[in-house]
Amino acid sequence: VSIDQRATKNLFAIPGIKVGAAKAGIRQTEREDVAVFDLTPGTRTAVVFTRNAFCAAPVILAKTNLINRQPRYLLVNSGNANAGTGPNGLSAARATVAALAAAGDCEEEEVLPFSTGVIGQALPVDRINNVIPVVLANMHQNGWSAAARAILTTDTRTKGWSARIDGLEASFTVTGIAKGSGMIRPNMATMLAFIATDLPWEQASLERAVKLAVDRTFNCISVDGDTSTNDACVVMATGRVPIAPVNHQDRRRFDFALEALERACSALALDIVRDGEGATKLVAVTVEGGTDAIECRTVAETVANSPLVKTAFFAQDPNWGRIVAAIGRAPVRDLDVEKVSVSLNDVRVFSEGGSPPDYRESAAASVMAADEFAVRIDLGRGSASATVYTCDLSYDYVRINAEYRS
Amino acid sequence: VSIDQRATKNLFAIPGIKVGAAKAGIRQTEREDVAVFDLTPGTRTAVVFTRNAFCAAPVILAKTNLINRQPRYLLVNSGNANAGTGPNGLSAARATVAALAAAGDCEEEEVLPFSTGVIGQALPVDRINNVIPVVLANMHQNGWSAAARAILTTDTRTKGWSARIDGLEASFTVTGIAKGSGMIRPNMATMLAFIATDLPWEQASLERAVKLAVDRTFNCISVDGDTSTNDACVVMATGRVPIAPVNHQDRRRFDFALEALERACSALALDIVRDGEGATKLVAVTVEGGTDAIECRTVAETVANSPLVKTAFFAQDPNWGRIVAAIGRAPVRDLDVEKVSVSLNDVRVFSEGGSPPDYRESAAASVMAADEFAVRIDLGRGSASATVYTCDLSYDYVRINAEYRS
Repeated sequence: VSIDQRATKNLFAIPGIKVGAAKAGIRQTEREDVAVFDLTPGTRTAVVFTRNAFCAAPVILAKTNLINRQPRYLLVNSGNANAGTGPNGLSAARATVAALAAAGDCEEEEVLPFSTGVIGQALPVDRINNVIPVVLANMHQNGWSAAARAILTTDTRTKGWSARIDGLEASFTVTGIAKGSGMIRPNMATMLAFIATDLPWEQASLERAVKLAVDRTFNCISVDGDTSTNDACVVMATGRVPIAPVNHQDRRRFDFALEALERACSALALDIVRDGEGATKLVAVTVEGGTDAIECRTVAETVANSPLVKTAFFAQDPNWGRIVAAIGRAPVRDLDVEKVSVSLNDVRVFSEGGSPPDYRESAAASVMAADEFAVRIDLGRGSASATVYTCDLSYDYVRINAEYRS
Repeated sequence: VSIDQRATKNLFAIPGIKVGAAKAGIRQTEREDVAVFDLTPGTRTAVVFTRNAFCAAPVILAKTNLINRQPRYLLVNSGNANAGTGPNGLSAARATVAALAAAGDCEEEEVLPFSTGVIGQALPVDRINNVIPVVLANMHQNGWSAAARAILTTDTRTKGWSARIDGLEASFTVTGIAKGSGMIRPNMATMLAFIATDLPWEQASLERAVKLAVDRTFNCISVDGDTSTNDACVVMATGRVPIAPVNHQDRRRFDFALEALERACSALALDIVRDGEGATKLVAVTVEGGTDAIECRTVAETVANSPLVKTAFFAQDPNWGRIVAAIGRAPVRDLDVEKVSVSLNDVRVFSEGGSPPDYRESAAASVMAADEFAVRIDLGRGSASATVYTCDLSYDYVRINAEYRS
């Protein structure tokens, strides 16, 4: 397997997918805030949506439209989430979809809307509809970077990943962009990801693959089932590579194609954590030695979401007591605390109920001085493991979220 | 029922309980950091301890000592939690208990130790033991205020509550002090409370009452089962009021005495929230219209612990979208979002999927400008309710917790 991999600036085009963006002035005027994806007929699309009970209007409409049709266009806006907007919100989403369908000469059901931004304010339909002709006049295969800018909210930078991969019976390409930076828990601010490939996929297999990939990546920077009102991960497969469609009944080909998809999702997910609101650290919390993966993930999430642990990360303070206290309150049964150990990278900070005799705090502090490091927890009672990625909690988190609407 | 109620400065003495404090210099030298309670023989004591799997050494020892004996002394220190200290920590706790038992002329099993402060550092046994004679030489019934200072860590002020209550067959007194200010979730920093009354209580009934009172108060500023390594709430009943012991088989007397206890716990618990690290707001999150109290509490806790909601409180920003998004991701089943409504005090900010037609943001903003206000959520599907108290998330939370050890 050979991989040619690229980051945001210079993403590979996916033949059959055209991308455009424009400035609609939804919330600000300096940068693009509307993006459109044009999907060549025959493209297979699968989407994982938020599990939040309050779905935003565009989520409700996109889900409905997906039932009977393969989408021809995706319409994305930032600056306004069109969430908590009631029946008017649904009408607004429909109006933008209708405008794009008319301009793009397709059925309304063939357009999927996506919105991100402030909740509870009316979507400025006219501003969006006014720029749709502008966007459509400027669609091209290399429009990914502009779209990556257009979908941002509190993100400080664009997030993209792209690779050409030799494998299966041909070379194929995967390109994706994402937005999201709402941390403490990424689930509470919208995460959007748009990923395309020229591989051919059988529809049901693609849907299965997207679920698996999201669960192993975007959901590992989050808490199970905890998502915002607007989250979505879209995967588009044009099928332009002339080989047989990937099907989960052929396990080897499926696994290979799934891994490519997972790489894209993983790279984008970690970029979201790195760009966490106010984040200065990317921390991998790995729990090993559990009886099953669920308990490992539960412990990892409890540690990864502890504000006390996260402020200690920010302070670069090897205050392992906070990590141990978080492990101790994680909702798992019958933990034998004498068997639990904790390391920062390879520096053991806790075992057998206390810090090891040879523990030197300076060694732990130097691990935490790095931009990225790992907290490794061993529960000492099994062979399962799980990893959750998190960031620190800084002054800037409070600043960004206290000032977001002002 | 007549109540004469007092706050921290001027607490009523409880005859039979003597209190003393001294400066041991455990972590700092400016103020008291060791407190001792002397319980007259015949006092009934009940304690609710942390449910954290990692119990601190003093918790382990106190639980053991409580099994067979009624305590004669409580020994409390701040500045060091003696948690995550392994077998050495248990020995250290035993050494301080032995010193007090020797000086106070009782059995070691009649002393309960309590510690709060930094986790994972060796308890400075000598410093504590050195001041024990000093403390014992200065015990008196009016020592509560000094003890209230001695038990503090990151708290910015002492917390006390006291009342003389006419009821049952006589007048009785309840006096309590507490420490704790670790918020986002109070469960993550140690909460200690010491409450005494001169009512006579039957032992098993007292234990039942303390559990009920804690569950309705201290556990409502926290998440079920989520406690620090050192949390404890101690209730001491001297029985000096010459009436028959309160027994849960006499429901009317039990309920009356329980309510008095609950008032003390509630006042102390709300003081802990008001003094939450960096807190500028006390917010009551009340969920009504649920199918049962558990789902109401689950929703209330999800909202109350949301960092995005808490930063909006700090910003005094009626960003109800964050509240709605938190409700939507609460782990409750089959929520019908169309029936959910949200108010800030009496200002309805959300109903039927959006903000009401007559909603004015200025009205909601003026509610949030107050130091204390309520978020009222109606799930629209039942008659159960629950309230959780929380505070806002400010710059100072990050400062306090990033700098705590440095």
